[in-house]
Amino acid sequence: MMRAVTTAGFGDIDVLQVSEIPRPIPGENEVLVKIHASALNRADTLQRKGLYPPPPGASNIIGLECTGEVAESVGSWASGKRVMSILSGGGYAEYATIPSDHLIPIPDNLSYEEAAAIPEGWITAYQILFYIAKGKPQEKVLIHAGASGVGTALIQLAKLKGLLVAVTCGSQEKMDFCRNLGADLAINYKTESFKEKIRDFGGVDIVLDCIGANYFEDNLDAINLDGRWIIYGTMGGHQVNQVSLRGLMAKRVSLITTTLRSRSKEYKADLIKEFINDGILDAFQNGILKPILYRTFSMEEVALAHELMEKNENSGKIVLKIIS
Amino acid sequence: MMRAVTTAGFGDIDVLQVSEIPRPIPGENEVLVKIHASALNRADTLQRKGLYPPPPGASNIIGLECTGEVAESVGSWASGKRVMSILSGGGYAEYATIPSDHLIPIPDNLSYEEAAAIPEGWITAYQILFYIAKGKPQEKVLIHAGASGVGTALIQLAKLKGLLVAVTCGSQEKMDFCRNLGADLAINYKTESFKEKIRDFGGVDIVLDCIGANYFEDNLDAINLDGRWIIYGTMGGHQVNQVSLRGLMAKRVSLITTTLRSRSKEYKADLIKEFINDGILDAFQNGILKPILYRTFSMEEVALAHELMEKNENSGKIVLKIIS
Repeated sequence: MMRAVTTAGFGDIDVLQVSEIPRPIPGENEVLVKIHASALNRADTLQRKGLYPPPPGASNIIGLECTGEVAESVGSWASGKRVMSILSGGGYAEYATIPSDHLIPIPDNLSYEEAAAIPEGWITAYQILFYIAKGKPQEKVLIHAGASGVGTALIQLAKLKGLLVAVTCGSQEKMDFCRNLGADLAINYKTESFKEKIRDFGGVDIVLDCIGANYFEDNLDAINLDGRWIIYGTMGGHQVNQVSLRGLMAKRVSLITTTLRSRSKEYKADLIKEFINDGILDAFQNGILKPILYRTFSMEEVALAHELMEKNENSGKIVLKIIS
Repeated sequence: MMRAVTTAGFGDIDVLQVSEIPRPIPGENEVLVKIHASALNRADTLQRKGLYPPPPGASNIIGLECTGEVAESVGSWASGKRVMSILSGGGYAEYATIPSDHLIPIPDNLSYEEAAAIPEGWITAYQILFYIAKGKPQEKVLIHAGASGVGTALIQLAKLKGLLVAVTCGSQEKMDFCRNLGADLAINYKTESFKEKIRDFGGVDIVLDCIGANYFEDNLDAINLDGRWIIYGTMGGHQVNQVSLRGLMAKRVSLITTTLRSRSKEYKADLIKEFINDGILDAFQNGILKPILYRTFSMEEVALAHELMEKNENSGKIVLKIIS
């Protein structure tokens, strides 16, 4: 048996509870991991409400990432090895089973809680900026929700590879935070028009968009010729009233929609391999890249953690400590 | 001096006239070509109406392609060599200047008029199906306007590379025509719902779309997970009402808008190089690929040629003979 966060039906934060449930059993090429920490993603709150069911075959337990130690040796993964991973579900629990080619070693200088801020946010960031948008040095990128988990990873990855970075966020504090991480331009969407600011910035080659409908027209204005516009979330609505295909064609825009969770195991393994081989772990080890941990909660405090995420006040990741 | 089709203002077909104008002078790395034939594209009728101005630096003369002979040797291009090329303008004339790396030798078995059905249509087709949509063997592709110049090229290129092909077109005659070119499924959009037919076909991995707004919802229905949807024209309107980003994300769709004419000379040279190196010319030489010539007009009959294109009755290309 193991302790895990389960839900009593779907709904508000009070459906979250800690229960004793069976420990998962690893299948072929899977590793049983004893989880030390997990972290929150916006998808978790949607799943809690019943709006984002786990993909077929995934655990019903909420939680898209974890850090922990290998519980039983498999191949080159020795028992006790410190690892982190994205998950298609099951992170809010004491144990998870993970495909061996999804595991990533934790850099020595990071604790389990610090590393818990990495997997989902940083791999999503790496995926959309390099794997999908093919971001190159000197290109300009617009990152919405710059202070979010994915946003803070995107800023650092973009600067690591020599791109010019503009972000939107919702407070002076978050603007300063994003600038400290390397953003060349921070825009407060509550008080400024990002359309105007991005025009002064010379437009952008890449838009990384978790907002959707609300920003659609302004994003089209902001993007330059041959721009890549990656939609990976619709926090600002998903129904766009008017889309001008001529407007998109005039800029030869590629509008690419994507999710990470629903991808095949093979896709994820390839992506993770590239993430590792591209020197990202070394940059964490050297302190060039920093996982951004906003606050840590215990498993029993999971409802407070969800409440904090829904308030949208965090800069960086909200971490759930599984082993106290 | 040379004879060329010019326009007396913008408007209906009666603005088209044949005039004497100065012969163009080749710049650096450009070849002067004595044109034998050109061909019509839908963009030509828009340009005649003043709705599609030529890009900066391009000729004001209508005409996006030509076949002819090298008029003066440049590098390895010897005087008299039979060549064909896409143009950013200037095809409806006796001479054009063309970047040397845009020239393509005409396969021996094709006349100047037959070859005139190749450049714009086939290079556009190659670009959108392989260069942009990354079409692979066994994938399913939906080609709208299957009997058009680009459509007939797309059908043949897709079959050459082992894809499964569905087309839409507007008459029984065009359906038969497309099937004879290799289409696995032909749909009459005037009498049938392509949405239903494509569902029976198992959906498609690629949509090649010159229609736009009218078909938007049905295209989204037709496309499969990770589908690439290339918009290269908006014959059916450009303003789409109510686009569901969630609908696009659920299928992880890439909506890629493109034009060929506006691309840089370097882009076109790279594309043409790949077109040649991929064995396409050999396939013309061997008769595996066939340029589809619908009807030929003399330069003096250019108004009739435009009228025919606007009636939308042609299957394949309408060619303009410059040397009679």
